[in-house]
Amino acid sequence: MIQVGVNGYGTIGKRVADAIRAQPDMAVAGVAKTSPNFEAKVALERGYPLYAVDAERTAAFDDAGFDLAGTVDELVADSDVVVDATPAGVGAENAELYREHDTPAIFQGGEDPDVAEVSFNARASYEAARGADSVRVVSCNTTGLSRLFAPIAEAYGIEKARVTLVRRGGDPGQTDRGPINDTLPDPVEIPSHHGPDLNTVFPDLDVDTMGMKVPATLMHTHSVNVTLEREADAESVRELLDAESRLFVLPPELDIDGAGKLKEFAQDAGRPRGDCWENCIWGDSITVEGRDLYLFQAIHQEADVVPENVDAVRAVADTADREESTTLTEDAIGLDGRIGGTLRDPVARSPAVADGGRDDD
Amino acid sequence: MIQVGVNGYGTIGKRVADAIRAQPDMAVAGVAKTSPNFEAKVALERGYPLYAVDAERTAAFDDAGFDLAGTVDELVADSDVVVDATPAGVGAENAELYREHDTPAIFQGGEDPDVAEVSFNARASYEAARGADSVRVVSCNTTGLSRLFAPIAEAYGIEKARVTLVRRGGDPGQTDRGPINDTLPDPVEIPSHHGPDLNTVFPDLDVDTMGMKVPATLMHTHSVNVTLEREADAESVRELLDAESRLFVLPPELDIDGAGKLKEFAQDAGRPRGDCWENCIWGDSITVEGRDLYLFQAIHQEADVVPENVDAVRAVADTADREESTTLTEDAIGLDGRIGGTLRDPVARSPAVADGGRDDD
Repeated sequence: MIQVGVNGYGTIGKRVADAIRAQPDMAVAGVAKTSPNFEAKVALERGYPLYAVDAERTAAFDDAGFDLAGTVDELVADSDVVVDATPAGVGAENAELYREHDTPAIFQGGEDPDVAEVSFNARASYEAARGADSVRVVSCNTTGLSRLFAPIAEAYGIEKARVTLVRRGGDPGQTDRGPINDTLPDPVEIPSHHGPDLNTVFPDLDVDTMGMKVPATLMHTHSVNVTLEREADAESVRELLDAESRLFVLPPELDIDGAGKLKEFAQDAGRPRGDCWENCIWGDSITVEGRDLYLFQAIHQEADVVPENVDAVRAVADTADREESTTLTEDAIGLDGRIGGTLRDPVARSPAVADGGRDDD
Repeated sequence: MIQVGVNGYGTIGKRVADAIRAQPDMAVAGVAKTSPNFEAKVALERGYPLYAVDAERTAAFDDAGFDLAGTVDELVADSDVVVDATPAGVGAENAELYREHDTPAIFQGGEDPDVAEVSFNARASYEAARGADSVRVVSCNTTGLSRLFAPIAEAYGIEKARVTLVRRGGDPGQTDRGPINDTLPDPVEIPSHHGPDLNTVFPDLDVDTMGMKVPATLMHTHSVNVTLEREADAESVRELLDAESRLFVLPPELDIDGAGKLKEFAQDAGRPRGDCWENCIWGDSITVEGRDLYLFQAIHQEADVVPENVDAVRAVADTADREESTTLTEDAIGLDGRIGGTLRDPVARSPAVADGGRDDD
């Protein structure tokens, strides 16, 4: 069993911990948190050993009556791999701690690429990450685009890609974010950081990205254009994408018009927290005009990097190849057959509806 | 004086009536309305003769104590030109009435192109509309893109254009519209109707458009990509666009991040109803990568077609060429120097702050 410490137990960390626990070859060594809030309470109820991020913070946990297993340096020492899910920029500050303990580390996409040896996407750069001391799972948007571009590049070649990312203003819990009733170019400058970030995974990809921000919290929505190197028709592209386990090509008969219905579908299907781990691509949007491919996809910013973090653990531990790891990950969390597969037998497939606390503490 | 009847006095009609009244060569013969609501009250206070759209509706106006000048057929008979600003689809039903009275008619972009002889944009198709019996002012989005593409096509040639239109869900008063907290591909199919609509103005333009809808009411926002036929640099494109009177290239020092600040700027400048008649293009977004031009622009859906309707009146009346008409229109409403020009002397330039009721009744 790979003992995995999760440093940072917020939006991403709590999801990654649950996904790690669901794996047959991994256990959660513990989770580290800055403050004893509602998420810390759930961590304890799920049986995760709870660590404070530093010694100065332990009093707050004691005052709240939360039992601590120790501080984060102890967690790192006891872990085979650490997943750093702290806020953007904090991961880089933690890198030295992981090096001191010689513990391989997984960082998140909010960090600069140079925080780690490899920018990681399971579909596109798994092999490059095997045995690395540090990898950075690229951001939710870059993950969503990497998953999409990898099979398209293999099948047709990409002459040029252009993406407008219509980003949610903040997550549902980020009540200090905006905008309200406005549509902001964000950043105004072109390209947005997403294009250069994609180049950390695909160095030769010619891609221009434009970012916007809107008053929505549920998902990002991408309008994607890819000028293909070779001719294609929409139906063959549809089949190509539909064969990818982390791309969910929405059939029109589901009558899903946006992120609200997608999340409701995932909740009804028994997905933990209503998570959409897959890119959600509108099947009817897949269009080819000449060599120009167009489509819309929605990206659940809280969830799509979760299976990628699990695969990154196996990559740095070097215990499985890509095919083995992605299959293990998806079987364990119930990401087979896309959200629709889960719908058929939600209780058996969803780890979150089972009792916690058995396999890793 | 060209006597202009305005049939339909809602979001567009009321603005067009005010802009017509401000022209030195036009008068508002009257405005027609379906019901005696707040807009009808303001029409009377501004001194516009008020007509009911049909005889069955007159009782409601009488009950509300609103003095009617008659019904719409009388207005059409007394007008040299009629601007039909009724809801989408109703214009086509009115076309026969205008033909019966042999009154040239201006329709709006919500109608199908075949409602009129010419799809009209002052910058791109004025001359084709001169002396026509009917023209259709293309929609707010198509107007915004026509103004942008005309000078770019002339200066550099357009090999291909691709636009994502992030559309406001509804106008501020359309309280029955959505979405709330969601980003919808709308339509899911590609292209959206905007591409084919642009081809009614630019028959040879190769353009693909993707539409989305977001929880905002103030403006549409476009992410625009144009693959140019000839090389260009961003600064020369910026200068080209800045020289167009109906394109406002936002200088970064204004610190305008979205539609909210744009509207506030227009209000502070004394613009009637805070209208932004110009395309608002973020100067810092104008970027050229190879032959790919990118930019963001905001389009005030309630206002950008207003000067176009005024020019369309002169085109069908055939009393001025394009240069004469657009200059007259802009001088009369205060669209000189873009919103910033108005700011310098708002009272003198803004027709809405002057008393109404003098020059056309």
